[in-house]
Amino acid sequence: MTNVIPAQPYDGRHVLADLHGCSAALDDIELIEGALRGAADAAGATVLDVRLHHFGGGQGVTGVALLAESHISIHSWPEHGYAALDFFLCGRKHDIDAALAVFIEALEPERVRANSIERGYGTVEAN
Amino acid sequence: MTNVIPAQPYDGRHVLADLHGCSAALDDIELIEGALRGAADAAGATVLDVRLHHFGGGQGVTGVALLAESHISIHSWPEHGYAALDFFLCGRKHDIDAALAVFIEALEPERVRANSIERGYGTVEAN
Repeated sequence: MTNVIPAQPYDGRHVLADLHGCSAALDDIELIEGALRGAADAAGATVLDVRLHHFGGGQGVTGVALLAESHISIHSWPEHGYAALDFFLCGRKHDIDAALAVFIEALEPERVRANSIERGYGTVEAN
Repeated sequence: MTNVIPAQPYDGRHVLADLHGCSAALDDIELIEGALRGAADAAGATVLDVRLHHFGGGQGVTGVALLAESHISIHSWPEHGYAALDFFLCGRKHDIDAALAVFIEALEPERVRANSIERGYGTVEAN
């Protein structure tokens, strides 16, 4: 008996999450890096590289995790208690909700607004 | 007479663009890097760092430009002629349409699908 496993269409999910009213120190680059790496791990993703940039004392941090499965990014504005995240991961086995939960625990927002967009070469077939 | 310039709310725009049916070689890391840097320049953005990863001969490329104004990313699947882009830039003065046009010229897609999402700490006030 032969099992035929069809090629999987690429069905990516891109989640944009806005975290408002964060209690955590959004200028803390080590906190941001830890959350970024923890989120990638929680998603079950493979980290290729992590790059961070600090805009200076009391100012925001930009961070991107390059993943074998695309990327996760964060940009923070400490003066507004605001952080903008995006999670782009291919395949259904990766858990973006778990990745977002890591950031929520680390950054302690009052409000979270998330948009989820389906994308990938598989998605155009339905058009 | 005193001109009072109010603090600008952060009004970011995040554009997710799917390029299908690309004629260009999506495994060409130099082409991808050139498009990424050209797009940042066309947008009027300030590049902090550019990171690229090649998944191997004939396979895709992942690239991210970290910007003073957030980021631009590209992930390509040469075997499907497909590239997934995202442009996240704060402020209205930055021209995402011009940045997208750079990628379209470089990658020669048959079809482009773009979603634009407003985000930022200014946007929650309207809720």
